[in-house]
Amino acid sequence: MLLHFTKMHGLGNDFMVVDLVTQRARLRDEQIRRLADRRFGVGFDQLLLVEPPRDPEMDFRYRIFNADGSEVENCGNGARCFARFVRDQRLTHKREIHVETAGGPLTLVVQQDGQVTVDMGSPRFAPTALPFDAAEDRPLHRLEVDGETLEIGAVSMGNPHAVLRVDSIDTAPVERLGPAIEAHPRFPRRVNVGFMQVVSPHEIRLRVFERGSGETLACGTGACAAVASGMRQGLLETPVTVHLRGGDLRIDWPGGDAPLLMTGPAERVFEGRVALA
Amino acid sequence: MLLHFTKMHGLGNDFMVVDLVTQRARLRDEQIRRLADRRFGVGFDQLLLVEPPRDPEMDFRYRIFNADGSEVENCGNGARCFARFVRDQRLTHKREIHVETAGGPLTLVVQQDGQVTVDMGSPRFAPTALPFDAAEDRPLHRLEVDGETLEIGAVSMGNPHAVLRVDSIDTAPVERLGPAIEAHPRFPRRVNVGFMQVVSPHEIRLRVFERGSGETLACGTGACAAVASGMRQGLLETPVTVHLRGGDLRIDWPGGDAPLLMTGPAERVFEGRVALA
Repeated sequence: MLLHFTKMHGLGNDFMVVDLVTQRARLRDEQIRRLADRRFGVGFDQLLLVEPPRDPEMDFRYRIFNADGSEVENCGNGARCFARFVRDQRLTHKREIHVETAGGPLTLVVQQDGQVTVDMGSPRFAPTALPFDAAEDRPLHRLEVDGETLEIGAVSMGNPHAVLRVDSIDTAPVERLGPAIEAHPRFPRRVNVGFMQVVSPHEIRLRVFERGSGETLACGTGACAAVASGMRQGLLETPVTVHLRGGDLRIDWPGGDAPLLMTGPAERVFEGRVALA
Repeated sequence: MLLHFTKMHGLGNDFMVVDLVTQRARLRDEQIRRLADRRFGVGFDQLLLVEPPRDPEMDFRYRIFNADGSEVENCGNGARCFARFVRDQRLTHKREIHVETAGGPLTLVVQQDGQVTVDMGSPRFAPTALPFDAAEDRPLHRLEVDGETLEIGAVSMGNPHAVLRVDSIDTAPVERLGPAIEAHPRFPRRVNVGFMQVVSPHEIRLRVFERGSGETLACGTGACAAVASGMRQGLLETPVTVHLRGGDLRIDWPGGDAPLLMTGPAERVFEGRVALA
């Protein structure tokens, strides 16, 4: 069969988006892996499936698969592309879209300028939430890495983040410290590592070393974790513009138990049709 | 405007193929570079343009652009995809297709099984043809590399090739010797480097370190150069199956001034439409 798809990206994080509301298909793991290959297939970081909701109160079900065929819970860059897609394809006329994900319900808002705001949930600072082996919940924790003592923020955005403040992300030792912190024994499920340069209370520059992937162009949960940690340390005030390698995100957060709102772009690159073997 | 295209590959060497017989478009360098990007564009090794011939005796004009926007003369894997494309799109019903290229006329034959045979021209062994700084035209030349004396074949297939026989391509020091031979001062325009394991007179295994690109999945001119050099050394007999990382090619060559004929697969991956900015 011929599967129609749209190729999109959010800050360089790229997606194959498939409408399974108007099309019927079932994709096996090995088909996903083949489609993910950038030479033998379509090529993408994640596959996004748009499905009818199971709960009639929701608008869609949103499923995310990595290039290796495994299903994952959430992806902020993908969520923005998802929202643009369902509106561009006229699958909905709403600007506020409620979706079911493997990680729970999610609300997406398409702005007038086409940027999309994603409710990323509340940060959790309790060490057990990451998990992180630390006695107390503090704004900064000491961490011994390679004989050096670092001060890091520890935040869960559903996935675990360590945030390290640096003078400049251009000279930050991401290649050396990223893997060392990611695999540190005090993070038993490993950790994503953000290197944050504070430009002003409303502006940071950020590089993120992602767990299992290495440095990426743009990590939405990493941007949220850095802003939450920076605000908690008194370095930042809402809203904060986050400059990532792939482009900019804006984070709004009143603090406390309120959710972080992430606003950023979603771009359509091309439309395609591929034969499923 | 919306540009229709087909994504194809030949042994993992991948192409965006655009029909400019039924569509009109002019692609600027920066548009090609953008389209070549695997996250922000379509993604490809080379862009293939199918144009009407300027010479009425020919069937098509075939133009090839690298990902950096520069036009190149020929690409054997691309030529096979080109031939499959013009037949699949019903731009021709011929099995023997005559095309104009920047490197001169080329004949492509689509076989019954869909494999395509490309006339790759005759090998030239004269050192001046590569160019290679050597006093005589010999089957093997001594080359000093890193204090080691290697014996290499030197062949021009329009582009320069050095061929080194190895016991096994699995253990051949491609990462070390590839760059050292490529940049050797006796090859003033640098050289592609083939590592050839002779399995039998009709079968070789080959890895190719391409000039300016590093090791690739499949190099058509490299396969021809290895077979021509191996036949000249008396190691091989026509036809020869060449096992490359991306798959297999068959090379037929009666020897002398006759052209090498390369036969191999060409695969269609998907169809697409992209907006040209």
